[in-house]
Amino acid sequence: MPKEGNCVVAQSGGPTAVINASLLGVIEEAMKQHPIRAIYGAKNGIIGLIDEELYDLRMEDPEELKLLKTTPSSALGSCRYQLKPFEHDEKDYIKIFNVFEAHNIRYFFYIGGNDSMDTADKLTRYAQKIGYDICIIGIPKTIDNDLVLTDHCPGFGSAAKYIATSVMEIARDAVVYPTNIVTIIEVMGRNAGWLAAASALASKDIGAPDLIYLPEVPFSIDKFLDDVRNIHKKTGKITIVVSEGIKDKEGKYIADMSHKFGIDAFGHVQLGGAAFVLENIIREEVEKRVKSIQFNVLQRSAAHIMSKTDVEEAYMVGRMAVRYAVEGACGYMVAIKRDSDNPYSSSTELVELNKVANAEKLVPLAWISHDGNYVKEDILNYIQPLIEGEVEVKYERGLPRYAKLRKIMVPKKVV
Amino acid sequence: MPKEGNCVVAQSGGPTAVINASLLGVIEEAMKQHPIRAIYGAKNGIIGLIDEELYDLRMEDPEELKLLKTTPSSALGSCRYQLKPFEHDEKDYIKIFNVFEAHNIRYFFYIGGNDSMDTADKLTRYAQKIGYDICIIGIPKTIDNDLVLTDHCPGFGSAAKYIATSVMEIARDAVVYPTNIVTIIEVMGRNAGWLAAASALASKDIGAPDLIYLPEVPFSIDKFLDDVRNIHKKTGKITIVVSEGIKDKEGKYIADMSHKFGIDAFGHVQLGGAAFVLENIIREEVEKRVKSIQFNVLQRSAAHIMSKTDVEEAYMVGRMAVRYAVEGACGYMVAIKRDSDNPYSSSTELVELNKVANAEKLVPLAWISHDGNYVKEDILNYIQPLIEGEVEVKYERGLPRYAKLRKIMVPKKVV
Repeated sequence: MPKEGNCVVAQSGGPTAVINASLLGVIEEAMKQHPIRAIYGAKNGIIGLIDEELYDLRMEDPEELKLLKTTPSSALGSCRYQLKPFEHDEKDYIKIFNVFEAHNIRYFFYIGGNDSMDTADKLTRYAQKIGYDICIIGIPKTIDNDLVLTDHCPGFGSAAKYIATSVMEIARDAVVYPTNIVTIIEVMGRNAGWLAAASALASKDIGAPDLIYLPEVPFSIDKFLDDVRNIHKKTGKITIVVSEGIKDKEGKYIADMSHKFGIDAFGHVQLGGAAFVLENIIREEVEKRVKSIQFNVLQRSAAHIMSKTDVEEAYMVGRMAVRYAVEGACGYMVAIKRDSDNPYSSSTELVELNKVANAEKLVPLAWISHDGNYVKEDILNYIQPLIEGEVEVKYERGLPRYAKLRKIMVPKKVV
Repeated sequence: MPKEGNCVVAQSGGPTAVINASLLGVIEEAMKQHPIRAIYGAKNGIIGLIDEELYDLRMEDPEELKLLKTTPSSALGSCRYQLKPFEHDEKDYIKIFNVFEAHNIRYFFYIGGNDSMDTADKLTRYAQKIGYDICIIGIPKTIDNDLVLTDHCPGFGSAAKYIATSVMEIARDAVVYPTNIVTIIEVMGRNAGWLAAASALASKDIGAPDLIYLPEVPFSIDKFLDDVRNIHKKTGKITIVVSEGIKDKEGKYIADMSHKFGIDAFGHVQLGGAAFVLENIIREEVEKRVKSIQFNVLQRSAAHIMSKTDVEEAYMVGRMAVRYAVEGACGYMVAIKRDSDNPYSSSTELVELNKVANAEKLVPLAWISHDGNYVKEDILNYIQPLIEGEVEVKYERGLPRYAKLRKIMVPKKVV
């Protein structure tokens, strides 16, 4: 028999364009499930549980909630807070479970990346240890696409679509003048190059990008210069995409190599990352007309160009998390299973939280070109369906109308 | 009686999201006007006329041409080439008019900013001087919105919509963590602050930006620090928008002031502009958690979020240019006249090329706050209708499908 009681949902880690679609999925499904009474949202992820800062989501206007499906960024707030192992420090756990108990929380849904799955796993084990009856489910989210045991991660498809589209637009802009120009675009990805790889989808437009570098392959500046010079001989217009996390064979980030272009004394000045370093090397060695572009947070927040596949899957994993929980499946993350490629279809399955926690899925080397400066067709076949479909965003007076929640706090009982 | 003969259209200066909508307007109207026979496009603006590089636009697939309405960047290529006064150097003029004559060009439509209007004006006067019968019309285009004698410029509305939307999305991303963060966003505009001003339209979402600095007001770093500190006392989350062209009271660009943060010896390294300089000042003086974001060329090429008003007006000025020309009005730019604000409606009128050439329309000081750190409601009322309406972009496999022209060259007769 399903547990009766209240539920909490929370969001963690870097925002995505679709993290609120998962939130909406949780809320709408929880409203349908009779064992679930109150629906609370924790402010700033696990921190809201520790501090007993909970929003009463049943007090929100249903029409406004529906806008969550196309609203970027974490509507409940986020955090990067990591719980210590409870074997070493129980303090946070005691606070959290006091809040769970005081508010009769029997379901906790945590939307996040692998750190968040680690948190969900720790809380599940602590609950077992103290014998508190609660069902905890992880909901995957990351533009980096680096969670294991799921075909892909909600948030990745929309970021990939933004990146491929923007690379097309930048490349078209770059070719208009009858002069040489090297453009270096930096995308997110400290260890995994999935987003950089997605830029290759743009190539069906006017052929850009020419070169793609992922963190999975050790980066050599000499090899890079050779690659650029080879293309430069044929055409003076070159578009390059690099992951922020490209590193040399010693594992040193290219972003930290300002000395490579003759400047050691940057002092406290923060430079612009890998693309900025490479821009200055190219200016010195190959071509004076060079610029670097960072997509920065826009690649994870540009809800105005989301993938419909991504939004629908993000919503689906949110809903399914609640259904699985009410059915009694606890201590799992909801993973996405690819059922078919053509036509594309997917469904959900459960994977154990502790198998996802702290693991990382990198781009297989078999999907990267032998030269290490592009990706193979296989990875494009994998990414292609994830960027497909367009979402109708609500506009008001020419701008997207994103959700504005009332955020009514639940009266505190503990702190 | 209308001149019979061939026409050339060309594009010049920085691309915009809608410059091809004007091109399409010219092509479609020229196809309807019987006095106009062949329709040529000059490659890379006036350079294509000097070098006799002309595309035969009647050879293009009409369906592909239609996609020009939603295709960013200059489809014919662009240039920044300026003609010398023919009183000093006739060389280019002789080449151009040889090409006009050899191809029986009787109409020339030049899409561009104030430099292009200057070119169109010089060619008009040269034609009169040598008695060559040709009608030259300028078609306005610039995201900077700095052309005089037109209510506004095609290209501005879409860039303004992109900027306001992106500021909303960045601000929502910035507030998710329970930590302080200062975000400084740099938008285009060397002398005119129209685009920076447009970011204020975002404020109806979650209140960002907090501060806006335009090139029209001398920028003081001390005043800036005061402004930021005042807000920082109340909230640790601050969003700031600056024009790339902000300058101090001596007229020195802030972007060039790396010495302000203790570094004189950047050597040949190119830094990131005004926002980068301010980022480092804020990090030193106010808040360690600070970042700068440059929209770079995306603000002029993001056709995936165009303003429908802007696209339709860009198309309108293209069509009207041809109609005016066939009716015999030569030596003019097609300006936009605002007929009504509510509901918004506009029409076209003619202004003399030489009155537009080399002039620049800045933001009136009366539309900037007394403190010089924000804009007044009046300018928002002016910009608001220009960003309204959404355009249905054609998508193919998840990405925008932009026009791909065949670009069949016209056989050379002169060079």
